[in-house]
Amino acid sequence: MSDTPADPDIVVDPALDPALGTRTYDLDRAHVFHSWSAQGSLAPFVIAGASGSEVWDYDGKRYLDFSSQLVNMNIGHTHPKVVAAIQKQAAELPMVAPAHANLARGEAASRIVAKAGSHFGKVFFTNGGADANENAIRMARLTTGKDKVLSTYRSYHGNTGAAIVATGDWRRVPNEYARGHVHFFGPFLYRSEFWASTPEEESARALHHLERVIVSEGAASIAAILLEGVPGTAGVMVPPPGYLTGVRELCDKYGILLILDEVMSGFGRTGSWFSWQHPLVNPDGIVPDLITFAKGVNSGYVPAGGVVISESISAAFDDQVFPGGLTYSGHPLAMASIVASIDAMEEEGVIENASAIGEKVLGPGLQALADAHPMIGEVRGLGVFWALDLVADRDTREPVAPSVMGALKAELLARGLLPFIADNRLHVVPPCVVTPEECLQGLEIIDEALTAIGG
Amino acid sequence: MSDTPADPDIVVDPALDPALGTRTYDLDRAHVFHSWSAQGSLAPFVIAGASGSEVWDYDGKRYLDFSSQLVNMNIGHTHPKVVAAIQKQAAELPMVAPAHANLARGEAASRIVAKAGSHFGKVFFTNGGADANENAIRMARLTTGKDKVLSTYRSYHGNTGAAIVATGDWRRVPNEYARGHVHFFGPFLYRSEFWASTPEEESARALHHLERVIVSEGAASIAAILLEGVPGTAGVMVPPPGYLTGVRELCDKYGILLILDEVMSGFGRTGSWFSWQHPLVNPDGIVPDLITFAKGVNSGYVPAGGVVISESISAAFDDQVFPGGLTYSGHPLAMASIVASIDAMEEEGVIENASAIGEKVLGPGLQALADAHPMIGEVRGLGVFWALDLVADRDTREPVAPSVMGALKAELLARGLLPFIADNRLHVVPPCVVTPEECLQGLEIIDEALTAIGG
Ligand SMILES: Cc1ncc(COP(=O)(O)O)c(C=O)c1O
Ligand SMILES: Cc1ncc(COP(=O)(O)O)c(C=O)c1O
Repeated sequence: MSDTPADPDIVVDPALDPALGTRTYDLDRAHVFHSWSAQGSLAPFVIAGASGSEVWDYDGKRYLDFSSQLVNMNIGHTHPKVVAAIQKQAAELPMVAPAHANLARGEAASRIVAKAGSHFGKVFFTNGGADANENAIRMARLTTGKDKVLSTYRSYHGNTGAAIVATGDWRRVPNEYARGHVHFFGPFLYRSEFWASTPEEESARALHHLERVIVSEGAASIAAILLEGVPGTAGVMVPPPGYLTGVRELCDKYGILLILDEVMSGFGRTGSWFSWQHPLVNPDGIVPDLITFAKGVNSGYVPAGGVVISESISAAFDDQVFPGGLTYSGHPLAMASIVASIDAMEEEGVIENASAIGEKVLGPGLQALADAHPMIGEVRGLGVFWALDLVADRDTREPVAPSVMGALKAELLARGLLPFIADNRLHVVPPCVVTPEECLQGLEIIDEALTAIGG
Repeated sequence: MSDTPADPDIVVDPALDPALGTRTYDLDRAHVFHSWSAQGSLAPFVIAGASGSEVWDYDGKRYLDFSSQLVNMNIGHTHPKVVAAIQKQAAELPMVAPAHANLARGEAASRIVAKAGSHFGKVFFTNGGADANENAIRMARLTTGKDKVLSTYRSYHGNTGAAIVATGDWRRVPNEYARGHVHFFGPFLYRSEFWASTPEEESARALHHLERVIVSEGAASIAAILLEGVPGTAGVMVPPPGYLTGVRELCDKYGILLILDEVMSGFGRTGSWFSWQHPLVNPDGIVPDLITFAKGVNSGYVPAGGVVISESISAAFDDQVFPGGLTYSGHPLAMASIVASIDAMEEEGVIENASAIGEKVLGPGLQALADAHPMIGEVRGLGVFWALDLVADRDTREPVAPSVMGALKAELLARGLLPFIADNRLHVVPPCVVTPEECLQGLEIIDEALTAIGG
């Protein structure tokens, strides 16, 4: 079931039954169809339980969760306050239809709007990030009366009709059944598309490129620009100085709405409630028109996502019918988990922890790893949102081969760290509640694993 | 907050605080953006709590839930076994990433496959009905190598990119940003598109029409036909004799896959696990290639949906990558609620109850109402899945005006029945656990309300 070497440190919890591990694995292989993969050769990792920044299997082996699952477990696993809120709401009122009002939904919406700031008025709730983007795109098209949505090639926005075609990466290609999507290149100095050599130059040239695309497509046809606040799965690329300000200016100049996708970057990941509120991401404090969220809003304890809507876009639908909806919009169980999660994050200083961990532990620690390991081409990130860009050659910046990433993954797992790997990158994305000690332990494991694969 | 007349039967529960009702309403109006509506004039009904087939407000007024919310509360509100399963899973392991295996997911998948039958092998889980259809369509396109999806005008398939364009009703029109969708007319004798006068004629002509569309579009371009097992929101239209058999034959003749959308009709609504397993719906026992589900699978206690995949389509992705996925696919909390819900439905004979209620109570009871009220043009349905088609004139079958439906809704609410209204129809869709007594009470309320509006 697991091909990791035997670990003498395993403390077997008598409540864990290895036979259940076998059953879990067998049922999965027999009946569960997995995302983004060929089904034949999968060997899924089995998780028996989890707490804080750790998960464990049925043999009692514990792993540091440096993936936060899909970069969503911001408040850590099985947080007692969120668990209690779910338990209470389940007993009282798990679900009502979106048309009816319920207290948890209003409490969740008011908290999210408060975090987003006074420019925003209402929240439309969805089940996850993809449908949040679907509905934000719909709002932009309907309020502008225009069609096209611009987004970057290095992006992921979700798996449904419009969201997957707004996505830039390879996952779009077999799914291009939506129209009205145009892609451009965002700023990414380490692998610049603009022959730039400084962050300022990258920023200015990326803005020039974007304006050329806008003009060439025809500004009158463009409803929105959709950007991840800090692009995540594509490589954790903090926008360079002036970029977001420049995008906002282009939007204003050409009558285009700005949608920021904060599905991965929001709710603490960068050390701010939203990444666009982080002084390093957006020093001029520009404000988007629509914000999409999911993941960190409740750390995924119950599926939920949504769109935070500016007062003016919201008002545009006071008389005009909004032609979108879903059965589980504003689902009370999900809403109760959002309320508890936001409150606990506030009470326990979770956002501040993520910020301090980034500045004092992960930032310097990963930089020290880069100094020791030539395979690390670049360290990028902030808060608990980092990527190590692994290269075969520091000069050419040629990405390491997939087999290297496979070997790295096996070494990390064997040492008790559950990683998040994308292309040639190790993303270092623990929960926002991770402790300095856990980070140091994780850094040591990454150090050893890189050494083991000769990096 | 509520414009229903004072009710002398209200028993005030001291735990209910009317001030919370006000707070719920005010927070909703201030910060919650609602589906399918203009936001300015909404006055949402406030729900404080619920149990079985009843909901109540903060004044302690109780309502029979003859809507099952959005026709999803099949097992009734706050079912103790489902609540307990959610509480347990929340404490143990609310969420893991889709790539990792967990026990609840395998248990849920194996139960669903068992209900679907031996033709099926695996389940791909989603968050709801729309993304279930998105992924079923993706599977059909990729395995056939063809593009077009045929669906009926009288249908609803969800709110995201492909699902909303597969939808036939008005909600598609402002959202036509997906390509590859073609619509045809399904059988509906009461408002026949085919000048038919018997169910057999309607069936034969609808099949002729479908074949003409297939041939005219070009069979070589058609990946799938997507049909609701029993079309729901569009009016609860049980397919006439021979129709599903004929569709299956056309699919086989032209190399087209058959996707049955069982989001609303599945998991007990018709008195069968899936509506296509019901002898009145599908007497010849034809089998679809893909089944989509959501709602009744766990009564919506946690957002969940999915695709049940035939062995052969599943095998097609053994070596080929499936290019679809979502963060909350196979979400453990949702999965635990599915396992508990299916087990409880089985243990408690919930499906059998829905079937008996339809045959012995709702069917005859609604027919008796039709005999008494000329406004009822037709009674359609089975199990706990019924529609009253309300007409201004029985001969012309002209639908009643929207204002009539508004008046009917107010009269039903005032008498303590929460209705599901669509166009000119009252859908009678209580939970599958509804008792004969509750049905009789509901029928009496509908009787009185129709009388009150002069119907
Ligand atoms: C930036 C971003 N947007 C949208 C999504 C899609 O979210 P979901 O998987 O919940 O549909 C993701 C998921 O990783 C994401 O990272
Ligand atoms: C037949 C059918 N398919 C799909 C859907 C969409 O489901 P969801 O709202 O969960 O996306 C619905 C919702 O009412 C439905 O009735």
